[in-house]
Amino acid sequence: MELDHVGIAVRELDRSLTTWQRLLGPSDGPPEDVPSQNVRVAFLSAGSSHVELLEPTSSESAVAKFLDKRGEGIHHLAFRVPSVDRELSGLVGRGEKVVDAVSRPGARGRRVGFAHPSAFGGVLVEFVEGP
Amino acid sequence: MELDHVGIAVRELDRSLTTWQRLLGPSDGPPEDVPSQNVRVAFLSAGSSHVELLEPTSSESAVAKFLDKRGEGIHHLAFRVPSVDRELSGLVGRGEKVVDAVSRPGARGRRVGFAHPSAFGGVLVEFVEGP
Repeated sequence: MELDHVGIAVRELDRSLTTWQRLLGPSDGPPEDVPSQNVRVAFLSAGSSHVELLEPTSSESAVAKFLDKRGEGIHHLAFRVPSVDRELSGLVGRGEKVVDAVSRPGARGRRVGFAHPSAFGGVLVEFVEGP
Repeated sequence: MELDHVGIAVRELDRSLTTWQRLLGPSDGPPEDVPSQNVRVAFLSAGSSHVELLEPTSSESAVAKFLDKRGEGIHHLAFRVPSVDRELSGLVGRGEKVVDAVSRPGARGRRVGFAHPSAFGGVLVEFVEGP
């Protein structure tokens, strides 16, 4: 199972992009709005994995709440899987909590779904559908 | 620049290994003591990247302090670079803070070095020397 990306919560996407581009080079494309999560995101490649920068676009965003509580920092880990729904239902079947019972549209046109942090010892894990 | 691994601070390595092995399969090898950081670690492969679980072996460990303050969760990001010393001195040359002025021995027989979280917007970044 491939590590697809690491999500980092930031207050100002443009400023953070400058910092991370200095390390990783140009971002994969222009920033993208992800309305389902109330965030604006940008991806930078790091080998076959990526760094995703997430700026909240609403105070209702889970990322806004994370920033209020913890400040800027690593927000989640995402793994690439053949079927997000299968991963989520597998967790539920083992009695684990999930944020998303079924997959939903995410960034880059991919279907995504989040487990609850309690399923992975405090780590918020996202599944991203892809080859 | 390849994402080498994501470091996760845990209280009990053996219990956390069970959780993550269910997702990622067997760990890369038996747990390893890293005396320079007062931690015991284990790596699990996730494609060409890895998840590193870190359990403190002393209350003086930076990981013990992280657990006291934030609880279990993602602790750092590590990037594979040809020269850790070059990355660290590059940061210092740009006026950024570093935890390690020069590289030192880390897990898996690799040389490693940490930037200060202020250099990457609150994210603790490690450099790992390797191809």
